[in-house]
This record gives sequence, structure tokens and C-alpha cells, in this order.
Amino acid sequence: MATATKTAIVPTREDDYPQWYQEVIKEADLAETSPVRGCMVIKPWGYGLWENIRDTLDARFKATGHKNAYFPLFIPLSFLQREADHVEGFAKECAVVTHHRLEPDADGKLQPAGKLEEPLIVRPTSETIIGEMFSRWIESHRDLPLLINQWANVVRWEMRTRLFLRTAEFLWQEGHTAHATQQEAIDETLQMLDIYADFAENMMAMPVIKGEKSEGERFPGAVATYSIEAMMQDGKSLQSGTSHFLGQNFSKAQDITFQDENKELQHAWTTSWGVSTRLIGALIMTHADDDGMVVPPRLAPTHIVIIPITFKADDPEAVLNYCHKLADDLGVISYHGRSVTVEIDNRDLRGGEKTWGWIKKGVPIRLEIGPRDIESDSVFMGRRDQGPKEKQGVPRTEFIETVTAILDDIQQGLFDRALARRENASNTIDDKEAFYAHFEDDGVGFVYSHFCGDPEVEKQVKTDLKVTLCNIPLEGHDEKGTCIFTGKPSKQRVLWAKAY
Amino acid sequence: MATATKTAIVPTREDDYPQWYQEVIKEADLAETSPVRGCMVIKPWGYGLWENIRDTLDARFKATGHKNAYFPLFIPLSFLQREADHVEGFAKECAVVTHHRLEPDADGKLQPAGKLEEPLIVRPTSETIIGEMFSRWIESHRDLPLLINQWANVVRWEMRTRLFLRTAEFLWQEGHTAHATQQEAIDETLQMLDIYADFAENMMAMPVIKGEKSEGERFPGAVATYSIEAMMQDGKSLQSGTSHFLGQNFSKAQDITFQDENKELQHAWTTSWGVSTRLIGALIMTHADDDGMVVPPRLAPTHIVIIPITFKADDPEAVLNYCHKLADDLGVISYHGRSVTVEIDNRDLRGGEKTWGWIKKGVPIRLEIGPRDIESDSVFMGRRDQGPKEKQGVPRTEFIETVTAILDDIQQGLFDRALARRENASNTIDDKEAFYAHFEDDGVGFVYSHFCGDPEVEKQVKTDLKVTLCNIPLEGHDEKGTCIFTGKPSKQRVLWAKAY
Repeated sequence: MATATKTAIVPTREDDYPQWYQEVIKEADLAETSPVRGCMVIKPWGYGLWENIRDTLDARFKATGHKNAYFPLFIPLSFLQREADHVEGFAKECAVVTHHRLEPDADGKLQPAGKLEEPLIVRPTSETIIGEMFSRWIESHRDLPLLINQWANVVRWEMRTRLFLRTAEFLWQEGHTAHATQQEAIDETLQMLDIYADFAENMMAMPVIKGEKSEGERFPGAVATYSIEAMMQDGKSLQSGTSHFLGQNFSKAQDITFQDENKELQHAWTTSWGVSTRLIGALIMTHADDDGMVVPPRLAPTHIVIIPITFKADDPEAVLNYCHKLADDLGVISYHGRSVTVEIDNRDLRGGEKTWGWIKKGVPIRLEIGPRDIESDSVFMGRRDQGPKEKQGVPRTEFIETVTAILDDIQQGLFDRALARRENASNTIDDKEAFYAHFEDDGVGFVYSHFCGDPEVEKQVKTDLKVTLCNIPLEGHDEKGTCIFTGKPSKQRVLWAKAY
Repeated sequence: MATATKTAIVPTREDDYPQWYQEVIKEADLAETSPVRGCMVIKPWGYGLWENIRDTLDARFKATGHKNAYFPLFIPLSFLQREADHVEGFAKECAVVTHHRLEPDADGKLQPAGKLEEPLIVRPTSETIIGEMFSRWIESHRDLPLLINQWANVVRWEMRTRLFLRTAEFLWQEGHTAHATQQEAIDETLQMLDIYADFAENMMAMPVIKGEKSEGERFPGAVATYSIEAMMQDGKSLQSGTSHFLGQNFSKAQDITFQDENKELQHAWTTSWGVSTRLIGALIMTHADDDGMVVPPRLAPTHIVIIPITFKADDPEAVLNYCHKLADDLGVISYHGRSVTVEIDNRDLRGGEKTWGWIKKGVPIRLEIGPRDIESDSVFMGRRDQGPKEKQGVPRTEFIETVTAILDDIQQGLFDRALARRENASNTIDDKEAFYAHFEDDGVGFVYSHFCGDPEVEKQVKTDLKVTLCNIPLEGHDEKGTCIFTGKPSKQRVLWAKAY
């Protein structure tokens, strides 16, 4: 059923959530499907978000001693096979390069030619190729810790794809580190989880639950996988970043050894951790509304759009000059490590069309400036976190002085709204029947229940209800109890939800 | 024959230039070959250079109105075939994906499975896939110009590879633009050439010759290709960036049309332009010496390394504190859009080993700081553009005040040295016999000679002498004359050289 109020996005979230998601991406010009099966084109507004995600995270990685490097796109099949669980996890979704040139056949049609001796896999992740290099680079305890990160594209041949959330090719970063001791590697794994959680909450305005994955949801080859989980507006959970403690599994499979201080040969302890363009999907499903995208100011490609209203002006040039002067004044202000970014939209379009275009893109602040505003030396401001018609006149100097406070106010408001939504849709359920009733009755949201840890039980819950054990929270859930499914002892309540 | 003086790099440039190049890369820890045929691993010091190249160019692209986006890694075979010259140019060096999963055969060995209906080519360049998207995005003259850039990895299956210069996979940027008029597209092509030349000279300290490529050296599918050419220390030319005016070739092959102001349907005019990790090879061969890499300060991942001399100290902690305080004071100074970047090398290694490590990496400034320096509140400075033993004591406050001037002095010195080397090895030859004699006699360097433009003659010269027509310079060579090979009229002298 259509809602009564007219919205910029049709259908609304309430009417058809999955379709609303696709429409927001389209109307905000974030990305689109390409003619290459499962691969997306990330358009400038979406890529601008990714650049800010990348740069902000990159600074945090560097501040904690990591260095960027670049490793081959292709992984020889024999490398992928070195760790048994690992190849098992990725074999069903690999893009395989088998030839290295094209030659015309008898009909003159180009065909693959020059068959490779060994097939190459387009990297689905780089543990095996980076591990191979680590085994060459590490000789002594003096070479440790080795703290490397890579920004790259990866390919996983998913059969059902959805823009940003699940695509055959996506962009990501993958950190890979090697350490002399188990404790140091575990500390690193948890440090990177903390960095992800801090980034999600402070830059994306998206509250997350940090926790450990269950055995069934672990990364193929890991000893322990940790995740941050965020609640989307439909009450489902989105895994938004993972950090893996790999123990000595990969170092033993790949011979990553070092001489310790006593000249004895030891296997290194390794970790890996990553986030991807999936975070843009998380941003959309956390903040967007029925009028389109809502971009948190700290990641916005453009903080402020200025729309000159020249058709009413005797002197359009004077309006433009006023706008450019204002943009210059704003551009020298620093906001969370970047300059305040201003775009003057002087396109030859009707004002309403322009304004709605920017609302749909989710730019935090819109300024309309016409002759009357210049006369009163003020700006006419609309905020994306307020209704499209709630605009207010603000003296120009006051606006310049308070602009970072306004941006932070929008940022905080988005976080508060998301947190309140999550808290409203979070329940503690201490009884199996109530748990089943909750989810069978189309219930969504986060459910915290005691669980004994039996993988078979977890599998049964997934089969019965399509509900995932998202993670075992690290904080705030340390009360012991009884598993609601088996009656066995439970160390703590864990997080259950329908999940992306 | 070995040279008498001991050098950090063996062999020296004079003894074995190609081997010297490989050794510099190894000793400076810039990159190494990987177990994947033809693919390199770019190590942190090399990748740091690439990050600075990327960020500096990216700012210039954005300042001229371009926006970044991201397009699929894979190109369907049918797309590549749309432009006949284009597919012809790349068919012999394509990585071809033919399957999308792995399955065990009868022996349990994993084999490619899930054959694709249409083979996918790992992009060697993206004109065809980006052109397809442009044809969907462009409808009206209001959508033009469309100014897009992509930072990405590409694959060209070269049979003979060399680190940075020619690898199967490399990193690059590719700009793709569409315009309403021919003139606008030509202006764009030349604007980007200018940006590349300015970047090469002012940031890389590498003088270049801007010019147009001959027909035989044109990009497959282009109407005109322009390049910047730099002279390496062995006197050969390295093509360091190209900008292509594509006319309407791709827009006609891919149906990129727009309605003009008179509502008539027109084909757009397109351009493309790119530089790659090859620029790091250019940096090495322009500036490195027999002691290793020499990094121009404006692109240096680290501007200054501080080596604390603690073994002589009664109080090693005091030395470290002094070093950290100095690093903090330097870190707030801005140098060409970045902060001055300082690394304190406190590794447990002998001082000489450390110092030589940094000389080989080519860090612009080394500071050694021990108890005596602290007592006199000064630093002991070595510059990479001076001999390894030419160090000088400088009062700390003076060093802080003059550090950007010292960095610029090093930068300018590198440029001046490269320019002088090029000018010394540039000749004007107005006679065919002298031309042949010059190159047959192992002659290298740049030769400017009159040429009528006949592709057959150009081909003959390449066959006879392995000499390439690098480009037809845009500036400084407009004197008419007579072709030295055919006696026909020549519009200007053109640039000939042995080329990478």
C-alpha cells in the first residue's frame, strides 16, 4: 500500500524495503549494475564516499604502524590449495583465468588461446599470496611484527548479487600481519576490531556490536573471527567488518617461520582483517529515508551545496560572485581532517529539480542564495536531517562561524537516531518458544539469548527461522545462564538476528 | 669492469645498467617479482611513492573538474571487439577468464568448472566498458562534458617483463571524457598532457618533451596520441604518460550520442589519458645513482629519517625524547600539500647498516642525533644529493626554519642535473648518414632530425637501428626543412631515440 505523503523515493521503506534500497542508489546516483554479470559501476557520488572511507581508515591504520603495499591480482591454484579450509571456502565462487591471449578461429571469431600451464584465480582474498611473500621476508624476530595493508579489488563469483552488499567484484582493504607471539597477534586482531568499531560509530554515525563469530560463521582457515554488526532499518543485521586471528594455520601451511631470540625456529602468528564497499550499503540502510540518501557529514563528498537563485536577480553575476566568495570562506575551514567541501550548483535546471536532486543525494547542508539573501547578507539553509521544507535564514557570518557545529549536530543526530532505533528493536529472550514465536511472527531486530555453543543447534535455528548467530558480544553481556535451546550452561547471551 | 670506488649498488650504472636497475629496486626495497608470472609485489617504500603520485595527480584532476568513479575489472569479449583497431591492439596480451568455480576431478584434483557463456577479459584498458556506460549516461548536451577518471589495476600479458617498466599487472589511472565538440575534446587532450608534463617536471624533477606520436605509435583506436618523453640515465627515452584524442571512433563504435541544442542527435567526441606505476621506473632511472635510489623530496614517502645514536649515551631515553620532540616540531610544517614526514629509526641495528639502508632507499635528509648534538642543540645532517660522508652540524632551530628550503634545494638540484644530462645528450642531426652513424656507433641520447612522416621510412629506421620516433615535439621545433631520409619536405624536426 502506498503511503499518503508524497516522497521522493517510490516505493517507501514501509512499502517495499528491498526495492526502496535499489531506488535510493539510483536516485542518489551512487552506483549501477554494469553489463558484466554481478559487477557494479560505482558512480562519482558513491566513489566519493568510498574515497573518504578509505582515507579516514588509512590514516588510522598508519597511525597504528601499518604500511600499505600491493600484491598480485592473480593467485596460482596451487597456492589457494595450501590451506584446506581456505580453498574449500572459496572454490565455489572463483573467477578462473585459463588463457593469456585471443586468436581467431576458422570462422574468424576470436577465441581464448595460449592455455596457461596452471590456472590463475582472481583473488577472492590474499592470505595465500601475501603469506608466500611473508615467508620470504621474515627471517628473524627482528622482522616482526610485520604490519601490512592492501587496498584492492577482489572477486567472489556470487550467484545472487545486490549493489554494494554482495557483488562479484568489490573494493576493500585487507590487513595482513605476522607476530612473534600468540598474545601479540590476538591483541592486533582486537585492536583492528576496535578501529573498525570506532570508525563505524564516529565517522559513519552507525552504532555497532563488537563480538566473536561462532565456529560456523568463521573465516575459512581462521582460529577466531571477530565482527562488528549493525542494525539496518528493516531490523536485520549487517556484518560490517571482520578481524581474524589466524593462529599458526597459515604460517604452518605456508612456512612463515622466524628465528627467535634463542635462535630457535618458530612459526609466526598471523592475522587478517577487512572492510569493503559493503560499508556504503550499510550507510544507505542506516541513514537513508523516503526522500533518498542521507550522508553523515564526516564522510560526505560534499558538505554543502550552494544553489544560486539567479532567475529572480537583476544582476545574476552579483549572485554568483556572492556564492563564490562564500564558498571560498567556507573552504578554508577544517572539519575532521578535511576542508569543508562546497559545490556551487549553477546548472541550467529548474530550482526545484536541483534542490530535490541534492536531497536525494543526501548532502548535509543546502544553501539557496538569491538577491534578497544578499541584501540581508544571509543564507537560506536547509538541513538534510530536517524536512525538505524546513528552511531557515541565517546571517552569513553566523553561518560561517557555526558551520562545523551544524555539521556535528547533524552527525550526532544521525547516530542518536540509529542508536535509538536499534535499542527499540533489541530484545532479551530467555525462552525457546518465545524466541521461535518472535521470529516466526515476522519479528525482526536483535535478540539476545543464552546459547550453549553447539554448532548443530545453531544450524537448526538457521534452517528453522533463517536467523543467524551474528556474534558473541564482547561487551555488556557477561551474565551466565542456561541455553534456551538445550538447557545446558551458557557463558553469556549472544546476538541473534536475520542477517544480510 | 668494476669501478675502483666502492659503491652500495653492484654493479654500477656504467658496468651493467639493466642489472644496476634491478639491484636498486631490490636494495631500496621498492618492489620484487612475485611467484605469479610477470606480476610484481610493490613493497611499502615503492607503494608510498605511488600513493604520493596518486594523491598529487588526483588533486590536479579534481581541480580541473574530473571526478573519480570505478568500473568493472572484466570486459566481455564482445565489448572489446567493438572497435576493430582496439581489439587488434590488445588480443595478443589478454588474461582471459573462462570459468567461475573450481571442482575436484576424478583424482580429487581441483579443476576449472562452470564455463562462462562468454569469456571475460581482465581489462587491459577500459575504453569499451566505460564507453558503454557513457552511452547510457549521456542523453543531452547538458550532460556534457562528462569528465571521469579511474584509479585501477590493469593486465597486459607481456612476455618479457621488467619491474615497474613492463609488468603483466600494473596500477594506473585512466581518464575518460566525452565532449560536445571536437575542439573541446582536443583542448582536453592537451590540457591533460600539460598536467602530466607539469607533474613530471615539478613533482618528479624529471624534464620531459611533450609531443604527438606518429601514426605507428598511436594508441589502438585513437585519432591522435600525445606523450611526454623523458631521458633516462642510459640515454634512452621512456614514454611516461599519454593522452589520446579519440575523435568519434569510440562514440560511433559504442553509440555515445547526445541531443544538441537544436535537438539533433550527434556523436560525442571522446578522450582518454593515463599514467601508471611505470612512473616509478622513470623516477629510478632519472635520479638513482650507484649508492641506490634518490627520491625527489616532493614525492618522498618519508622526507627525513632521524637516527638516534644511543649506544654512546649515558641516558638513551634523553636522546630518544630529543628525537621525538624534533619529529613533532617538523611534523607540523607543511611542504607541497603534505606535512613534513619524519621517521625515527630506532631499530636494533648497527648505525652504519641503518645509514646505508636509508641512503639506498634515497630518503632526502638523514639526521644523526647523539648526546653531543643534544648538548649543542643541533642536528648532524646528511643530504642524499651529496656524498654519503658529507655531513654537517646544523643548529636545531636553524634546521627547523630552513627545512623546506633544503628540501626544495634538493628537488631543484635533481631537476637541474637531469636537465643538464638530457641537454648534453641531445643532438640535432641533419643528415641520414650521420644519423645512422650516430646510432650504429652505440650512440644513445635524443636526436632531433627532419622527417617527412612516411610510416614505411619510420619502420625501416626501427628495423635498422632499433630507434623509435618518440614524438613530434609541440614546442621549440617548428623550423621547416627537408626529411633526412627521403628529401621530402618536413614540417619540423622530430625526436628520435632508443626507447623503453
